Amino acid sequence: MSVIRRLQSDTAQFNAELRQLLAFEETQDASIENACRDILHHIRQRGDAALIEFTHRFDGVQVQHAAELEIHHDELHHALTTLDPTQRAALETAAQRVRQYHEHQLGKSWTYTEADGTRLGQQVTPLDRVGLYVPGGKAAYPSSVLMNAIPAKVAGVSQLIMVTPTPKGERNPLVLAAAALSGVDKVYAIGGAQAVGALAYGTDTIQAVDKIVGPGNAYVAEAKRRVFGTVGIDMIAGPSEILIIADGSAPAEWVAMDLFSQAEHDELAQSILLCPDADYLQAVENAIEKLLPTMPRADIIRTSLADRGALILVKDLHEACEIANFIAPEHLEVCTDAPETWLPYLRHAGAIFLGPYSSESLGDYCAGPNHVLPTSRTARFSSPLGVYDFQKRSSIIHVSSTGAQSLGPIAATLAKGEGLYAHAASAEYRLKTS
Amino acid sequence: MSVIRRLQSDTAQFNAELRQLLAFEETQDASIENACRDILHHIRQRGDAALIEFTHRFDGVQVQHAAELEIHHDELHHALTTLDPTQRAALETAAQRVRQYHEHQLGKSWTYTEADGTRLGQQVTPLDRVGLYVPGGKAAYPSSVLMNAIPAKVAGVSQLIMVTPTPKGERNPLVLAAAALSGVDKVYAIGGAQAVGALAYGTDTIQAVDKIVGPGNAYVAEAKRRVFGTVGIDMIAGPSEILIIADGSAPAEWVAMDLFSQAEHDELAQSILLCPDADYLQAVENAIEKLLPTMPRADIIRTSLADRGALILVKDLHEACEIANFIAPEHLEVCTDAPETWLPYLRHAGAIFLGPYSSESLGDYCAGPNHVLPTSRTARFSSPLGVYDFQKRSSIIHVSSTGAQSLGPIAATLAKGEGLYAHAASAEYRLKTS
Repeated sequence: MSVIRRLQSDTAQFNAELRQLLAFEETQDASIENACRDILHHIRQRGDAALIEFTHRFDGVQVQHAAELEIHHDELHHALTTLDPTQRAALETAAQRVRQYHEHQLGKSWTYTEADGTRLGQQVTPLDRVGLYVPGGKAAYPSSVLMNAIPAKVAGVSQLIMVTPTPKGERNPLVLAAAALSGVDKVYAIGGAQAVGALAYGTDTIQAVDKIVGPGNAYVAEAKRRVFGTVGIDMIAGPSEILIIADGSAPAEWVAMDLFSQAEHDELAQSILLCPDADYLQAVENAIEKLLPTMPRADIIRTSLADRGALILVKDLHEACEIANFIAPEHLEVCTDAPETWLPYLRHAGAIFLGPYSSESLGDYCAGPNHVLPTSRTARFSSPLGVYDFQKRSSIIHVSSTGAQSLGPIAATLAKGEGLYAHAASAEYRLKTS
Repeated sequence: MSVIRRLQSDTAQFNAELRQLLAFEETQDASIENACRDILHHIRQRGDAALIEFTHRFDGVQVQHAAELEIHHDELHHALTTLDPTQRAALETAAQRVRQYHEHQLGKSWTYTEADGTRLGQQVTPLDRVGLYVPGGKAAYPSSVLMNAIPAKVAGVSQLIMVTPTPKGERNPLVLAAAALSGVDKVYAIGGAQAVGALAYGTDTIQAVDKIVGPGNAYVAEAKRRVFGTVGIDMIAGPSEILIIADGSAPAEWVAMDLFSQAEHDELAQSILLCPDADYLQAVENAIEKLLPTMPRADIIRTSLADRGALILVKDLHEACEIANFIAPEHLEVCTDAPETWLPYLRHAGAIFLGPYSSESLGDYCAGPNHVLPTSRTARFSSPLGVYDFQKRSSIIHVSSTGAQSLGPIAATLAKGEGLYAHAASAEYRLKTS
């Protein structure tokens, strides 16, 4: 059996095969829905008392008062100062580069004044308080703390509250160090739907936030979906994906390893290669077979590649771009000569990595752009996490007395057409009758 | 019984009263959820056939082929050319002003190059296809067509597909004229959850879109919630609200009529006035009592003001701004002398109307900014509908061969810290060993 499926774009069944390959239905589990409804209800009704109970039940952490669940600044600072110096330097450089990139995204207020003195514009302001969910256990990624926290801080969010479960009291020093580095204001050792509820509704101890961001398990995702509206949420992420467009100019091992770097996340991750050169596709398949046994996470990679991976022979690079637009991948590597040539043809992707030196892993950690990206074809309509997710806009309308004379009759005409007579009267009151 | 409740910010119970006044729970109706699940399932499985059946059942419109449900360009054009000339001129001026304002919102791609030749940036592109829902019946507002369609067209959306139910075949010429004016590409006479399903999943006749925007009834809202993820959606709007901050310098009748203009939308709409001058509050209440019987929609206004309205005596205008930030209203009028003074203190509002001549109704129709605004306190974390809702961003990462030498070790260190060895190897492959 082959290690990864091979497809060809010029076959009759290709479109159907591609759709099948991409199909991923998020299962809605009724037991998770019910559990989350119940947990959120208790948090909303009983606040800290419920939070203490759930944290005891699910994380095995027992406290008398919810305030004991706070992880204080001295502990964060201690995690940072006792970090291995190489790791600390890497984390600091990554944080600095992420900050620098995101400063380019900062939205600014603007206004313009019309001839009659009417002033119109948009005021851009940060959110007041944001909650950042950081998973415990194996998916506890310090890089994720940087990628979520730094854009919020660049936006000017004054209260950034991180929550992270600490099963049996075990705390992840890398995560705490990353929190210290990225300017998180408060950290609580809570997790699951109960942490989402505490952030959304507030308790005596935990202040209600305006938006909750960050990845989590199925319970966290369902709880976020349920509190949406009370607070803002970021997107609910699906399995991670990479699509590579290659012309055969880079070493086949590089491309194979980039496919692995996606596949090692989990069995549902998706790695796809598009190339017009059949020999190169074979070389990549050979490299996969050679390198796979050397990987610490070989089992996960093997399953991911077998179930959801593909090497696809395409007609040319133009067709590759069209297929890429259909797939709208989370990560898109353009591993070709003169990669910028293809940028104008690429409409839908979370992040575009140009040229053989831009491995996705550089973007995951330290190139600067965010690694929180739209998955499951949602790059057709959504964007990487950014500073703009932590700012919002208010329209500014300052109509001059002269302006009201010309706008009033227009508004009144349209309001009457819609049967809204108080709207019309309100505009007409501002007309000067003299 | 008083026509509108009176509150004072200096009483002990004020905070509780204010929370109670703002409380609005969207009821989740199980019968609507089930009906939508069923309708969406049928549309997804059976496409046009199901669409034809539901349109017959719910709208009383019978066709043989789904293509007959299209409303063609000649009919749109005819609606525009036969419009009353005053209405047409008003609609055209409004469209032009809305377009002009929204052009200021157009996001642009950017890149920067680092010293080692690494290039980073963000590519901004429009969505390919957008669906615009326009309600039929009494809530059919041509102004809403302009406000939803024009930002999409300014963003560069190439296929804007409008759907609107036509119960018993009745078409609203004002709505069709607005579609012609704002550059809608296709119009179908379909509505309800079945129209949302057709736009989200596509049928043989109706192309699947990338995002669905526009207001609708509870079925439309529920269907949008359910297809979110397959497509993007705009926010789900709650009842409309106005908050007015007044210092007493404008005629009391103006303020009373502005409160009416919100209250006339429906019984759940909310109109609140904040003022530090008790005499002025009394004058506004008197004006309300005097003017209310003259309004065509007096019954709706009376219920809305009695159930959800309030005149609130505050200590001063600073306190008014703080209360406004807590309320985070959809519409905020600052009806004072030197209104710009207060702008820096106002953090959360959908649209801010400055000065006595900026009645909300001017903003609703023709000032230029969008009238689709965040409701129910969501202005704490969300923004008016804008061009940015029809664009998305892709990160651009072009690491130079020199850049890969400095970034590679950082990424490898962090990847190993997270146990992701393929990530580390992928970065290390790009290191020059010579």
